Amino acid sequence: MEHTEFRVKAKEMVDYIADYLEGVGARRVYPAVQPGYLHALLPRAAPAQPEPWDRIMRDVDDVIMPGLVHWQSPHMHAYFGTPTSYPSIMGDFLSSALNVLCFSWASSPAGTELETIALNWVGKAIGMPDCFLNEKTGSLGGGVIQTTASEATLVSLLAARTRTLAALCKLEPQVEPTTFLGQLVGYCSDQAHSSVEKAGLIGMVHMRYIESDYKQSMRGDKLEEAIISDKAQGMIPFWVCATLGTTGTVAFDELREVGNVCQKYGSWLHVDAAYAGSAFICPEYRHWLDGVELADSFAFAPSKWFMVTFDCTAMWVKDTAGLQRSFNVNPLYLRHENEGKAIDYMHWQIPLSRRFRALKLWFVLRNFGISGIQDHIRTCIQRAQQFESLVLSDNKFEVPQSRVLSLVVFRLKGDNSHSERLLKVINSRGKIHVVPSSFKNKYVIRFCVISPKTTSQDILDAWNEIKLCAQDIIIDKIGADNSNIDRRKIHRGSLPIITELYSLQKFTF
Amino acid sequence: MEHTEFRVKAKEMVDYIADYLEGVGARRVYPAVQPGYLHALLPRAAPAQPEPWDRIMRDVDDVIMPGLVHWQSPHMHAYFGTPTSYPSIMGDFLSSALNVLCFSWASSPAGTELETIALNWVGKAIGMPDCFLNEKTGSLGGGVIQTTASEATLVSLLAARTRTLAALCKLEPQVEPTTFLGQLVGYCSDQAHSSVEKAGLIGMVHMRYIESDYKQSMRGDKLEEAIISDKAQGMIPFWVCATLGTTGTVAFDELREVGNVCQKYGSWLHVDAAYAGSAFICPEYRHWLDGVELADSFAFAPSKWFMVTFDCTAMWVKDTAGLQRSFNVNPLYLRHENEGKAIDYMHWQIPLSRRFRALKLWFVLRNFGISGIQDHIRTCIQRAQQFESLVLSDNKFEVPQSRVLSLVVFRLKGDNSHSERLLKVINSRGKIHVVPSSFKNKYVIRFCVISPKTTSQDILDAWNEIKLCAQDIIIDKIGADNSNIDRRKIHRGSLPIITELYSLQKFTF
Repeated sequence: MEHTEFRVKAKEMVDYIADYLEGVGARRVYPAVQPGYLHALLPRAAPAQPEPWDRIMRDVDDVIMPGLVHWQSPHMHAYFGTPTSYPSIMGDFLSSALNVLCFSWASSPAGTELETIALNWVGKAIGMPDCFLNEKTGSLGGGVIQTTASEATLVSLLAARTRTLAALCKLEPQVEPTTFLGQLVGYCSDQAHSSVEKAGLIGMVHMRYIESDYKQSMRGDKLEEAIISDKAQGMIPFWVCATLGTTGTVAFDELREVGNVCQKYGSWLHVDAAYAGSAFICPEYRHWLDGVELADSFAFAPSKWFMVTFDCTAMWVKDTAGLQRSFNVNPLYLRHENEGKAIDYMHWQIPLSRRFRALKLWFVLRNFGISGIQDHIRTCIQRAQQFESLVLSDNKFEVPQSRVLSLVVFRLKGDNSHSERLLKVINSRGKIHVVPSSFKNKYVIRFCVISPKTTSQDILDAWNEIKLCAQDIIIDKIGADNSNIDRRKIHRGSLPIITELYSLQKFTF
Repeated sequence: MEHTEFRVKAKEMVDYIADYLEGVGARRVYPAVQPGYLHALLPRAAPAQPEPWDRIMRDVDDVIMPGLVHWQSPHMHAYFGTPTSYPSIMGDFLSSALNVLCFSWASSPAGTELETIALNWVGKAIGMPDCFLNEKTGSLGGGVIQTTASEATLVSLLAARTRTLAALCKLEPQVEPTTFLGQLVGYCSDQAHSSVEKAGLIGMVHMRYIESDYKQSMRGDKLEEAIISDKAQGMIPFWVCATLGTTGTVAFDELREVGNVCQKYGSWLHVDAAYAGSAFICPEYRHWLDGVELADSFAFAPSKWFMVTFDCTAMWVKDTAGLQRSFNVNPLYLRHENEGKAIDYMHWQIPLSRRFRALKLWFVLRNFGISGIQDHIRTCIQRAQQFESLVLSDNKFEVPQSRVLSLVVFRLKGDNSHSERLLKVINSRGKIHVVPSSFKNKYVIRFCVISPKTTSQDILDAWNEIKLCAQDIIIDKIGADNSNIDRRKIHRGSLPIITELYSLQKFTF
């Protein structure tokens, strides 16, 4: 494809993308395909000769699109979603064309500096203290874009490990650092994301999961108890990961309590606010940040709720030299004459190379403005409130933990098996997409509203779809318990009948 | 930005990108900015209110473009470049709009399966043995896209570490895995990329650098000597990283020799072919792959020479279960009913989430065809040959190691300081961009031809620019040695005079 063809075909792609994003709500959000479907549809080897562009795009329509989960759909309520936005798509588009690498300042001065500036902007916008910003030469703190929140968690754990082992080896220089490794122990809530466990596996440190309280929050006293007990057994508490907004139920660890314990015992405190961090752009949610000045590092993912295209996780560190000690290897071919006077982000992360990701973040901040992002966050929360009210209005369902921000967890009353079956039915129909979670041994369905496309009507439709999917399960349950009811007489499409049956039987799941 | 505005502004962006890529050769490839330049030009905080698109794009022109290294320039010869291509830009554009995550099969079936298929296509195209492909259910081997070659190196090291420690702990179940960690030792050539050292730091294992031979290749005998010596001291050799195409001089480790040693001592063998791997699409370069069937993992970066937009590193593993043992944590919210029947790439990598990167790779393979990529590789190599001939024709320069593939390393004869100064002058003028390397204590300038935009005329221009930049250095050197020559009489712009001076003085650097 040469310049002239690109000018034509890429403009067609612009319309293809706009058509897609305008109409994505009409597609099945969750595809009806089975593992291996695509292997049966594509050749087993790359073509020897070039294929024309239109044939490739025909295959996109015919074989790719039917196998996608449409994450941009207004009916996508699974995981934490990744709503993108036009300014972000534009930023990524331009970044793909420039295709500059930003591993050192010299490899892309604008890329490096825009990243520092954009992270200062975001940091200020969500209320991060000055100690995390990098506004002056010689600032100790600073922000960096990592691929994912999981990578940020690992980076912080590795930096903490380096710091602790360096201190221990200073006291006992004749001892190998690995000798101490088996004594290192990290902590997180029993509600923390699986990536914390993964970071522990990679870092080869012990991880202790602190029992969360009735609000699923990690508390300072439980953490301190665990630390005291571990220290008594010769262990070395070196790292704590506090979560602001857990994946399961959007629980918040008590940051100030946890921070004070970390200060007392000299542990690195990392804060994982992957999803909830975006909400801090609204001052009314910033109370959850109380105590953040006690943290050593903090991360949230603008690729979740800030409408920035994946991948983009904003991470701030109070002492960036700590990162650099963990990752700094500096061969001649990467050296430049401005070393020391500028940031070389390759020393702040695991891989060497990195895209110009600051561009999309900067485009979003400017084209939405802070007020635009705030509006988006608040609208999502209103939609989630609306959904929660609908669930609460139906006595066959329960919301075992109140909605927090834009996540509602709900379930059919009674056995977990009913909700498990409900989830399968919902996803197999593909009109909305949800995933499960569990807490306190209850299987719950997570319903997250994160897309600017989700309207109030979409919420009503989603709720009707869920009720419809629940019907068969409810009928079966009643049928099993009431053999005198002729199941064939129950009209499955009619909700009022079900409701009536319920009130008749006084049956509670 | 809403749909209608996007349709207009994104089409303007298409022309902006095409204009940029058509005209990038006319820009300074290396910018004339100093650290901090951008901080002085941008506000200190994000705007409260939305800013119109055109104002943002004006700033792209005014403040971003002047601070970029133009990696797409035909005059970019630094590092290994990242030439992108229109089909790849299109793939990334569409991927940004879909913005699906491909961490599990269920999170994006098409994304996951296209990745497997594209990696089978690439694997076959470069001559990877069947044991690395994933064409049938139950295949042990398979390919995955990692962000970077450095990440692939780390992933393989971690998988090898898990495998070795699991075996040791099976023999001595009462011992903590970290107890053995201090005994683990990995190996690579003294020419290996800095990311191997970084992987060792993160994995907390010892790394041994094997002295390379006169061709900068790691040889089996030297490796075996080191292993025997380490084993004698109670160390456990667990991982070897062989490089096919080093960063410094594109040296190739003797893969079959190294592979045989790895087999003998039970070490995981990883092959890092980050740059050179692309060349294996041409059968005439595939002899360097001899012995690859002895490897456990292999990676190369289509984001370097395959014209695929960064980030995209193709990695194949013979026993993918080994990866999964290292990274598998599987909470309820990520589970799906097709687990075990499909690939969940989140267990093959460090972060959890991942973009739909297979799309751009698939677009490139189809729109270029294998023949199109072969043509591109061969053209770059011809251009590098042309450059090497020009350097060799000038007796003030030397090529201390013959060109390999599309990299030429050259220097001014004599002290390293002359070439160091030459490099500074070249980059400060910004017409072409190069970076240094060193081997055997010689400072060399690397000149890599990797862009489909670099024409034969560009090579001539680059060489003239280098000779021009060398003039002052040559004059100063002669001046220092010959005080009877009146430097003011030397016309600095005229190469013939310099050549004459040289022949007059019989001076050799």
